[in-house]
Order: sequence, then C-alpha cells, then structure tokens
Amino acid sequence: MQALPFYPKGFRSCAKNIGIRDATLDFTVIASDVPASAAAMFTQSRFCGAAIVVGREYVADGRLQAFVINSKNANVATGEQGLANIREVVRLVAEEVGCLPEDVLPSSTGVIGRQLPMEKMRQGIVGIRDELRAGQLERSAQAIMTTDTRPKIRAAQVGNAVLVGMAKGVGMIEPNMATMLSYFVTDAQIAPDVLKHCLQQAVQVSFNMISVDTDTSTSDTVAIMANGQAGEVDLAEFQQALQAMAIELAKELARDGEGATKLLEITVDGASSFAQAKRVAKSIVNSPLVKTAIFGADPNWGRVAMAIGKCEEQVEIVPEKVAIAFGDLTVYQGHPLPEDHLDKLTEYLKNSEVVVRVSLGLGDASATVWGCDLTHGYIDINASYST
Amino acid sequence: MQALPFYPKGFRSCAKNIGIRDATLDFTVIASDVPASAAAMFTQSRFCGAAIVVGREYVADGRLQAFVINSKNANVATGEQGLANIREVVRLVAEEVGCLPEDVLPSSTGVIGRQLPMEKMRQGIVGIRDELRAGQLERSAQAIMTTDTRPKIRAAQVGNAVLVGMAKGVGMIEPNMATMLSYFVTDAQIAPDVLKHCLQQAVQVSFNMISVDTDTSTSDTVAIMANGQAGEVDLAEFQQALQAMAIELAKELARDGEGATKLLEITVDGASSFAQAKRVAKSIVNSPLVKTAIFGADPNWGRVAMAIGKCEEQVEIVPEKVAIAFGDLTVYQGHPLPEDHLDKLTEYLKNSEVVVRVSLGLGDASATVWGCDLTHGYIDINASYST
Repeated sequence: MQALPFYPKGFRSCAKNIGIRDATLDFTVIASDVPASAAAMFTQSRFCGAAIVVGREYVADGRLQAFVINSKNANVATGEQGLANIREVVRLVAEEVGCLPEDVLPSSTGVIGRQLPMEKMRQGIVGIRDELRAGQLERSAQAIMTTDTRPKIRAAQVGNAVLVGMAKGVGMIEPNMATMLSYFVTDAQIAPDVLKHCLQQAVQVSFNMISVDTDTSTSDTVAIMANGQAGEVDLAEFQQALQAMAIELAKELARDGEGATKLLEITVDGASSFAQAKRVAKSIVNSPLVKTAIFGADPNWGRVAMAIGKCEEQVEIVPEKVAIAFGDLTVYQGHPLPEDHLDKLTEYLKNSEVVVRVSLGLGDASATVWGCDLTHGYIDINASYST
Repeated sequence: MQALPFYPKGFRSCAKNIGIRDATLDFTVIASDVPASAAAMFTQSRFCGAAIVVGREYVADGRLQAFVINSKNANVATGEQGLANIREVVRLVAEEVGCLPEDVLPSSTGVIGRQLPMEKMRQGIVGIRDELRAGQLERSAQAIMTTDTRPKIRAAQVGNAVLVGMAKGVGMIEPNMATMLSYFVTDAQIAPDVLKHCLQQAVQVSFNMISVDTDTSTSDTVAIMANGQAGEVDLAEFQQALQAMAIELAKELARDGEGATKLLEITVDGASSFAQAKRVAKSIVNSPLVKTAIFGADPNWGRVAMAIGKCEEQVEIVPEKVAIAFGDLTVYQGHPLPEDHLDKLTEYLKNSEVVVRVSLGLGDASATVWGCDLTHGYIDINASYST
C-alpha cells in the first residue's frame, strides 16, 4: 500500500504477526513518545468485549500513551479469564513502551467466545520496544483488519499539525454511539475535554451513520490521541478535518462491507427532526430487500417505499407528501411516475455508488447514511467465518 | 396438493389465473353464503396498500361476506388511482357474489409501485358467480402465493364446526401487529367482538413472532369470517384451535422463508418481561450473522451473544447471568464452555430445524419466535424480483 504523505510527530508504531490464527498481520501497537490527551467512544453492546471494559476504565482520565490492538480474536463472552488476559496484555505492552498500564488502551476484534492464545501473545509482545518506529502507521491499518479487503487510513494537515486516522470494518457493522475499530493520532495540542467533544461531534455524522448488516459489534471502539508535539491549532479547522476524515473512513467501511459490490448513500430530507430523518434513512439502508434489489440492479423502487412505511412509529409520514429519487431520477412523487423510467433506473443501478434521496415533505431536517448492497459474498464470508 | 379432510359449511370459493403477470393462479374469491361475523388485523406500515385502506373501512362493522385477493401486484404507492382501482374491483366482485361492496375485504400482494392491470381484472371477475364452489379452498391457498414454494393451509374441527386457515409469505416478512396474507373461515357461530379478541390473541403469539428478513410488508392482512352455519362452539376450544393453527401457519411461513433451508426457533426465558424476551429473541432471529452462520453450520455461537448484546436499551442484561444453548447443547453459561463441544454444535446445525435457547437469568418471562437462515437463495430471489 501507498505510504502516507505525512505523519504526526512523536508517534511510533509496529505491526506484526503473532500467529493468532494465520500468518497475516494480527497485532499492532501505536505509541506516543509522551503521554497524550485522549478520548474514546465504545460500543453500547451489553455483551461487550473484555478490552472495552478495560479501555473505558483507562481512558476516563483523558490521558493515554498507547493503543494495542489484536485482530482474529475478539475476546468477547470470555468471562473473568478474558478480562485477566487482556489486563496482562496491557501490562506487558506498557513495560515495553515504558508507560503506565493505565495509559494503554486495548482493542480486540475477531471471533467471539474464545480465549486469547496467551502464550503467543506473551511471546509476540517481547521486544516490541525495539520494533516501534515512526513512519509505518500503514502497517497498523493492515494489522487491525479482519474480513476487510483493504486497509483504510487517511492523513491530513491542520496548521502545523498532522492528523492520521485509520479504521477497520466490515461485518457486524451498525455502530451505535461508537464505531468498529478506528484510531486517530495527531501531534496537535488539544485539551482532553475539547478532544472528547470533537470526537463525539465527528462520530455522530460518520461512524454512527453507517450500517453494513444491522449487527452492532461487541467491540466497537474509536479512540484518538493528541500528543501536542506540533503545538496548538485552530480548533474549528481541526474539528472540520477530523469530521471530514471520519466521514471518509466511515464511507470506506461501508464500501468495503462484507461481500459488497456497491456503496449506498441514502439522504432523507424534509423531515421534522434529525432523529426522524436518520430513522427512515437507516430503515432504507438496512432493508435486505432494498440491498438485494440494488445488488441485482433490479428497478424495484417500491421497496424504498416499503422501508419508509415500516417506520410505523413515525406517525407523521404521509405517503402523498413523499418523493423518492435515485440519483437525479425521481420515481415517486405522491404517486408513481410513468414506468418509462424503469430502464433508466436499471442503468443507474449498475453504478458502483448508488444515491437514494427521499423527501418526506414535513420539515427542514435531514440525515445522510451509508451502507452497501447484500450479495452472495456476504453469505459466503459469514457461513464459514469461524471455521 | 392434498384435499382438506373437511370444509366449513356455507363457504364457496374460486381461484383462477387472470394474467396479472404470468400463467399461475393469481386471483381468488372466498365467499360465505350469508353475511358472517368478521375480524381483521392489518400492517402498521405508513406506506400501506390501497386494499388495506379499503379493508380497514369495510371490516370496521364486524361483518363481511367475501375475501377477494390478487397476487403479483401489491397496489402500493399507487396514489388515488390505486384506491379507485381496488374500490372498483370490490364493487365488481360484490355484484358477482350478490352482496354489498362493504362486505368484501380486498387484499393485493406482489410488486410495489405499479397500477393494477384493470382490463384484466375486469375480464377476470366476469362470471365468477358461476365459478364459486364448495370444497376447493386449497386452490385459494395457491392463488395467494408470490415467492412461496408451497401453499400453507390447515383445517381443524371445533365441536360441530370446522376452521380452515391459510397464509402466504415469504419475503418482506416481519409482521407487526398483523401478518402477511392469512385467512381463516369457520362455520362456527361467534359474535364479531369475541371473534376479534380471539384473532388478536392468536396473532400475538404466532404471526407477530416470525421474521424472515426484518422487512415489514405494506400489505399484511389477517382476516377471519365466521358464518354461524354450524351453530355455537366452546369458545375456549375455538380459541385454542385458532391459536394452534395460527402458530402452525406462522412456522410454515418461516420454514418457507425466501431461500430458506432451515427453520429457526428461538426461545428466550428467564426474562424480566415478555417484551424483553421478545426483543432479545427477535434480535437473534433477525441477525444476518446468526442466520448465515446457521446456514453454513458454522459453530459460531458467539454471534448469539452479539445479538443479545446489541439490545443495548435493555440495560438489565448481565452477560454473567446469561446461558446459551443449541438444542440440548449448552455452549455458554456466564463463560464459554470448553471448546470440545464445537464439533457437536457443527453436527447439530446440520439439522433442518435449529432451536436456540437463551436464559437471561433475570425473571420468569419467556417468548418464542421463528425465522429462517439467510442463504444464496434469498439473494437470488430478491436481486431480480421485479423483472
């Protein structure tokens, strides 16, 4: 993969294979040279992973110095043993990095219900202090992948500072108040409470707006470290860069959704509230019937009407006021338009990005969500994931 | 298909092809010789079909004399024209049956967003008065099918009376307070308000407990006529028979879910309320990751934990109190059991019926829901449904 055009100062990383499942990269540490301002958001799942429990505890004081992440094993539903295991991993990594265990945020992603292979973990961690280097964050973006077909990583400049973000998906993805694994590092100097606010704002319109398969992960984590090595930056500019990068990474996750051949973007406007717009947009992007029709380029737009209609708790929705369009092609406007547009719709649906616009005709609020089509690939990947 | 062992007195029916889309049966009328007590429940979709609007209006007085149902076109999202069309269909059918239009309940199922082919409808209705016969309700069960692979129809005796029920699915199925198309006819004598209560009770534990694909139809209808020709019956016995038949038909719908190879039955007990039990059970049966794993007989039981966890508004759920079993095989009990059960689980998952039992360890409430696996067949059917 391409090298990033720039890196934030004072961060080093390493990524390696420690043999958790196969020979691909499965373990990475990203460390700041000094303790950094930090913020994180986690899954709302009631069956969350052991790493989430520890991460919540350690990021609470707004300070971190390292991320440690393994793929191929989620360490979820593993009871007390699972918790003891991840605490040991964190302690061993802290020794190598030369920081407090409480300044290490761990994440695990992969199969649920199996204990971490601790012998391999211990052996893999030994010597990491000598493997940490600047300028190789791309390898970390690779090491956190599970069924992702490609790494997702972006870099941006904000004044003198640099912001780098990475994320992985791509199944069990309907993040709720957090995301699948995503990490940001910057050398900007930003206070922890400000950083947390920036992160929440960005997540709200990016990771919380995507869905691959309606299944909320047990391990969703998005975390950011700002180590201050580049000094202060314009906060509005930083927020803008963080948000834009989060949206880009979120769209990359949707585009690379398990088995996906198409990125779907659903915008609902004319809603009476953001919540209503989001509810309707999510209903469309999550409908297996909409997703399969788009996969097959079947001009079955009526399924969008179905998906709007099933938001039945939204009593305000009035079919006569609704308009439905694909790209620039309006197909319904209180009544179906003449069927001569069906061939055009079929052609449009062959694109690799499909945009659906729905106007509810009720108010001024809008929301945009992203997802992907539902294909044979999704079935193939998930019918044999654990074996 | 096999003939029913018995039929209710005083009902006649006909089923025919009127060429809506292809040469299969696509139109049926089921009529009572006399006005009957009646009750019906409909989809809660905000984008409901024209037939639903008319049906709601006509069943309000608790009296019907006929059902008229077409498949292959749902007459949904068709505006004023669609409403005028179905009113004309009802009027023409009433003339043939010799009853009031207000005593005819219409239903339409099929593709959304296209007007009914009214010339074919008008021609098809002419002469129906001579085609109505006793003893051929099986043909009606065939005429209401869309992607169903087989008709679903049952008959039962209740005292001197007979109860016949039929239903169709099998995609766009997560009924909400109603069901996909399902019709019951009986010659028992039951007052309309009692009949309505019996129907609501039965639907609650049957059709409202199934999901094929989380997509709530625009056309869900379940309706019953009781024409009194066999006199009074024991009401408790009738309720029991109706409920058992509704559950059987609902399970048949799930088993025949689009592309399904397996029937899933999910029971959640130890819940603090029925609502909680149902919420968790639905989350499991609707999870595409659970459904694909079971399709592939992949012993990835951790996905059941994920699906429990994502009911994040159920703050009570405590992973340490949870138990998860497949059939008689417990795989998790606050912690994962030793992995030597994984081969047994793989074997179990090869059955055509898979039972998942979850105990939440919180209270006494329980719920059972039904669904099916997610397969290549579902993708194939729905990638080209409208074309």
